[in-house]
Formats: sequence, structure tokens, C-alpha cells
Amino acid sequence: MKLYDYPGAPNPRRVKIFAAEKDIELELINCDIAKGEHKTKDFLKKNPSGKIPVLELDDGRCISESVAICRYLEEIHPEPNLFGVDAFELAYVESRNRQIELELWTQIGTSWVNGPIVGKLGRFKQIPEAKETSDKNTKNFYERLNNEFSTIQFVAGARYTIADITLLSAIDFATAMVALKPDSTLRHLFRWHKEVSERPSAKV
Amino acid sequence: MKLYDYPGAPNPRRVKIFAAEKDIELELINCDIAKGEHKTKDFLKKNPSGKIPVLELDDGRCISESVAICRYLEEIHPEPNLFGVDAFELAYVESRNRQIELELWTQIGTSWVNGPIVGKLGRFKQIPEAKETSDKNTKNFYERLNNEFSTIQFVAGARYTIADITLLSAIDFATAMVALKPDSTLRHLFRWHKEVSERPSAKV
Repeated sequence: MKLYDYPGAPNPRRVKIFAAEKDIELELINCDIAKGEHKTKDFLKKNPSGKIPVLELDDGRCISESVAICRYLEEIHPEPNLFGVDAFELAYVESRNRQIELELWTQIGTSWVNGPIVGKLGRFKQIPEAKETSDKNTKNFYERLNNEFSTIQFVAGARYTIADITLLSAIDFATAMVALKPDSTLRHLFRWHKEVSERPSAKV
Repeated sequence: MKLYDYPGAPNPRRVKIFAAEKDIELELINCDIAKGEHKTKDFLKKNPSGKIPVLELDDGRCISESVAICRYLEEIHPEPNLFGVDAFELAYVESRNRQIELELWTQIGTSWVNGPIVGKLGRFKQIPEAKETSDKNTKNFYERLNNEFSTIQFVAGARYTIADITLLSAIDFATAMVALKPDSTLRHLFRWHKEVSERPSAKV
């Protein structure tokens, strides 16, 4: 299986961490998004949304969207389980994963798109007011997470799941690329971050 | 099972359509979001994100996030299948559902939050420039869908799935509440809309 990837891009990283946790080997294909290779006619046949990651199966069929790719990998390689084992856990892990995506990732994304690095590319109209709001929402969500981590070990409770991978890649990207590192006083959040960063899978 | 609901709110509607497709009866509890009942201390115990819908099980455990609730219902009530039956279909349906959520729903949401109805409430800072961009993105996505529906019957291909429910609730909300009705020239999109709207489940 081939994974269309770009070094440093946070969404392909989610899939790479997920695969590493399951010891699944993926052939990484560099899709140079800086050169617009994700918007070519050929690539749009693989993913009409023009985004990476894309997983290409040996028979040529393609799957886009990080979480959908991870779900495919979970189905063909069920252990260790990262999505939940019974109806309630499956739903609960998904709800936590979605909270991180819809309430944190979207905000980091807005700050990124309206920030200086993307600004220099000149491809999108910058809206500074939108960035002010998303910066604030990101910080508020960090505080919420910090409170939650005072009583739970991982995002979805007692064990490591896909929701931890989503949060780790969000925070690492926000820290490295968007100047939205969590405040150092958020010690429960940092305790969690240290623990999940020490897993071998986090090195990808 | 109780579903915390608010008439006209699009996300609870997704769960209600999904449940109707499976003939699952839910006890609807009105959570008056106009009065802020989704932000009370008691409600935040059910869902720390302060959003509806929430599904409350008979043992008191709660699940938030529409798609997570639907996945729970799929697990306890597998037929008719709405998420996919094998590894590839499960992943493909999820990728299509996510495209609708992340590339259309987010844009309709931005136009809603920065539009006149929410503006009158005075709860959020309005950013007119953000609305201009999201209006445009919504229209572009409608055109993409129209092209896709010229060759596929449903969002994820040959059969009705959760991705159709997500799109139907998005378009109906955009039409009724955000003045973003698809242009009448998009006949393939309207063909799809007519078909899914005629299913009894769409009446909720």
C-alpha cells in the first residue's frame, strides 16, 4: 500500500503514527504540496478534494481522509485496537476524536491559513480578525484539555486511541508552524504530551 | 434512549433521519438552545462541548457528536447498513461523509455564524469577510457535487448511506436558514435532493 505523504504535513503524520502503532509498513510517496502536486489532474483522480494523505491500495483503489484511512487499517489489522471494541467505546472514541478535530484542529487550521507562512504564498485572502478568534479558541481548548487531563490519562480515558494521535499531531503542528504552543502552566496537558511523545510511533 | 434535540437544528436532525431509516425509536428531549440550555452545568456533564445532539442511554451514559451517535445506533441495530459493510466501503463512506462535513458543512457554518440571524443575537463577533469566502466555497462545493451526481446516484455511489443524510441536512439548513440554496441550474444535485427527500426518513 502506498501513502501519498509530504514531510511535516500534519494529516499524513496521523496516518503514519497510526500505522506505526500497528506495525504496518506503508510505501511513502512524496506528493510535493509546495509545488501543487496535490492539485494536478492525475492526483484529483485519486482524491477529488486535492488533499493528502491518500492511501492507494495494491489494486489501485484510493482512500482519502486521514480518519477513513486509519479505519481501513484498523479493519485489515485489528490489533492493537485504536478505535474502540464495543458499541459504546467505538462511539465514545469517535466523539472525542471529533471534538479534537472540530473544536481544536479547525481553529489551528484557521490560524495557519491566516498566518504569516501561508500569507507569504499569496494563495488565500488573509483575514486577520478570523485569526484573532481562532487563536483565542485554540487557547481556550488547551485549557479545557488541561482540566480533563487532571483526571484522565488519555484523550478517551484509560487507554491510547486514535484520539491521542489526532491531538498529538495537532499540538505538534500548532507549536512548530503556527506559534500556538500551549502555555507552560498547563501541566496536565504537558504530562500527557510527554507520555504520548515517548511512544516510538511519535517519532514519524 | 433519549435524544437531546431542538426542532430545526440540523445536527440532531441527522440522528433523527438515521434512526428513522433503521426504525429505531428515540425519546426526544427538548434542549432549548435559544435559552442556552446546552450550556448549563448539568448539560455540560452530558457533553462538555455544550452541543446537541446528545444520546443518553438507559444506564445514564451519554454520547455526543452526531456521527458518533449514528455509529452507536449502527452497532446495536446493524440493518439496514448505513456505514459500509467491508473495510473498503467503511472507509469510502467515511471519506465521503467527511468531505461533506469538512468542505461543505464547515463553510455553511461559517456563513451562518457570520450571518444576520446569529448577528442579531450579539453573541459572536461577526466577520463579514469570512462570510464572503464561505459563501463562495459553499457554491463551489455545490458545483462539484452537481458534477459528481451526473455519474453517481448517491453521495457514496450506488446506495444510500450516512453521507446522504449529512448532505441532505446541510443543504436543507443552508436553504432555509443561511440563504445558500443551490442554484437551480444544478440539475443533478436537485435530482439527488428530490430522491432522498422523498424517503419517509426525510420528514423528521
